[in-house]
Amino acid sequence: MRYSFASRTVSLLSSPLRQIRENARLNSFISLAEELPAQELFPVKLLEEAARDVLASGPDVLQYGEPEGFKPLREWLTAEWGGRKNTLVDPSQVLLTTGTQQAIDLVVRLIVDVGDSVLVQNPTSPGCLQVLSMQGAKVIPVVSDGNGLLVHELEQQMKLHCPKLLFAAPTFSNPTGGVWDLGRRKDVLDLCRRHNVLFVEDDSYGDLDLNLKRGEMHPSLFALDDGGQGGQVLYIGSFSKTIAPALRTGWAAGAIPVIEGMTVLKQLADMQSSTMNQRLLHRLLTGPRFNWHDHLAQLNKEYSTRLKLMLELLKRPLWKEVTWRVPEGGMYVWVRLPDGLDSAMLLKAALPKGVAFMPGGLCTAGKEGASHIRLNFSHPGRDELLLGMNLIGETIAEFTARR
Amino acid sequence: MRYSFASRTVSLLSSPLRQIRENARLNSFISLAEELPAQELFPVKLLEEAARDVLASGPDVLQYGEPEGFKPLREWLTAEWGGRKNTLVDPSQVLLTTGTQQAIDLVVRLIVDVGDSVLVQNPTSPGCLQVLSMQGAKVIPVVSDGNGLLVHELEQQMKLHCPKLLFAAPTFSNPTGGVWDLGRRKDVLDLCRRHNVLFVEDDSYGDLDLNLKRGEMHPSLFALDDGGQGGQVLYIGSFSKTIAPALRTGWAAGAIPVIEGMTVLKQLADMQSSTMNQRLLHRLLTGPRFNWHDHLAQLNKEYSTRLKLMLELLKRPLWKEVTWRVPEGGMYVWVRLPDGLDSAMLLKAALPKGVAFMPGGLCTAGKEGASHIRLNFSHPGRDELLLGMNLIGETIAEFTARR
Repeated sequence: MRYSFASRTVSLLSSPLRQIRENARLNSFISLAEELPAQELFPVKLLEEAARDVLASGPDVLQYGEPEGFKPLREWLTAEWGGRKNTLVDPSQVLLTTGTQQAIDLVVRLIVDVGDSVLVQNPTSPGCLQVLSMQGAKVIPVVSDGNGLLVHELEQQMKLHCPKLLFAAPTFSNPTGGVWDLGRRKDVLDLCRRHNVLFVEDDSYGDLDLNLKRGEMHPSLFALDDGGQGGQVLYIGSFSKTIAPALRTGWAAGAIPVIEGMTVLKQLADMQSSTMNQRLLHRLLTGPRFNWHDHLAQLNKEYSTRLKLMLELLKRPLWKEVTWRVPEGGMYVWVRLPDGLDSAMLLKAALPKGVAFMPGGLCTAGKEGASHIRLNFSHPGRDELLLGMNLIGETIAEFTARR
Repeated sequence: MRYSFASRTVSLLSSPLRQIRENARLNSFISLAEELPAQELFPVKLLEEAARDVLASGPDVLQYGEPEGFKPLREWLTAEWGGRKNTLVDPSQVLLTTGTQQAIDLVVRLIVDVGDSVLVQNPTSPGCLQVLSMQGAKVIPVVSDGNGLLVHELEQQMKLHCPKLLFAAPTFSNPTGGVWDLGRRKDVLDLCRRHNVLFVEDDSYGDLDLNLKRGEMHPSLFALDDGGQGGQVLYIGSFSKTIAPALRTGWAAGAIPVIEGMTVLKQLADMQSSTMNQRLLHRLLTGPRFNWHDHLAQLNKEYSTRLKLMLELLKRPLWKEVTWRVPEGGMYVWVRLPDGLDSAMLLKAALPKGVAFMPGGLCTAGKEGASHIRLNFSHPGRDELLLGMNLIGETIAEFTARR
């Protein structure tokens, strides 16, 4: 038969992400495009024990659960945020999702009508941009400097576009790994209040702090918003980068009307996430042999080592014309290509060499992306990273030599 | 702040399902409204062993997997369908989803633009109707008799509305438990071909055959469509009713362009379902101590016993003015109330007594639903069923006595 797809679907089907992902399945292929954590650091042994305990507790574990997610895990989250992140949130304000991606999809489906304006920190995560495009949002990029969104620009855009949402990651954004300073956080929150804009705060990478000596972290906008009770911020994140992606457990926390609305939409989208996996996570996190903070410290130490290696490689002659800012957290370096070099063209040349990166266009709402690429340092092993960076560097050098 | 939700979201937020579900969490409450399988029959011990084996195989299990789902499970499914259901399908034609619900949501998002017409078997599953309403589809109910959709009516509606999809469950529909005969299956498939309508075949309950002496089942429309190669049918279902809901594993199988499109949308919706859970299922299904066909036979024997009890209770004097057709499969009896009695009114009166059922309006696109209720017999234990049926019967009798 002739298939006729929905109008907004069609553009998504031709995304270059598909080609990258198909290549990445080949054994010899090296992908620095992925959003994969290091699997060597998964607590697999402890999860095996947790699975045994959880399944031994009886068939309830395997039944449908609450659509909001396993309550003890929501309680654990709110207690953990309360202790470490200065929030005061009730478990009824939390919806467990299938990763951050689902939290984004649900809030956008809840709030955005076709043609509604949405502001996004620029660059931003590819997954967010795809959801907004699918929902028919008018996406407005907001400019940043090294300390966060530019407040004056933001205010202009709020006045001009009356946006429904502002999507941003103030702590270790995907792709830049940057951090907003405290003043900027307060100013942005204040603007959202005055212009009635819901701030969607993506904290997916917020625990991946590579600046090991930092000590104190800036509070989230969620915490600044009356400890999470102000209703101005939806706080989203997941365990995918810190424990393990296959458990598919993330969250959205915020005002009750928003969480309830997202819960109704979640039932329509997939009824509920796996409460078995949520129980597994809860058992792991509350078990005597696992220490969450030590686990994060170990993760950050290892990622910090991997980042150092990538930064060393970026100093090699092959990469001489590129520039970058050292990320403070997360899993990526956002690299500016030599003048005139287009990241999509570069990717086309790199794929046949057996290597991929994320072309900047997929992380940006404006045109800036064409001049950037995103490199992942958390997943590849040492040899893979050396070879992959060499192959990409060569491809860049071939372009620049031709000029 | 003042929250402003998307226009189509608003109606969903006031669904009576929410109130039923909230009541159902109370310990003393009896719900015959749910779509829950009997947890006594979950293979919990064998899943515990499967979890041990799967997690012992190393950290790969916990990493992101293929967005299409764990390939060996897709291979198992296509082999199982090939052996028992007369299909000839490649694993690349299968997408694993978070239950049937997600399969419905994804295909509707892929294909339906606001205002597009979609035909639905009437009555049909509440989850399907909610997705269609959220996507802004124009939902056209199609009338059936005891042998399936009325072909002449269907043809008229295809000519009149040029629908993009026809959604139906030819084998043990939710809520009626009816079965289409072979002639009707062939006629409907033929009409879909001639009018270029994708047939979405919901087989969620297709393995729950309560007519234990049946032996031969009618082929699915998917099988009739060149063994699944014709591209006219999307075949959806899940393990939620046959193994365990908390594994959140369902599927969509069909033509490559549709499956690829749904896979792209799935990445946007939640990246992927839990490949760990998919591995668990695969390990269970291929393990030496589990026999899939014996398991289904045991399930059907138990459900058939539970159905008999419900049918006995329906013959009691309290229920004297209701009518029903004995379901041939599935987990529900679809009951017609005494003339003039409205199912939503009845529910309002039943909830304070501590009992719920599914009001027919949630299962119907037209007005027919007001006169029906759906009763679940798979989940409640014997005492719960006795008490619950008594309470509902009393509520009905109070209404009829007043006339």
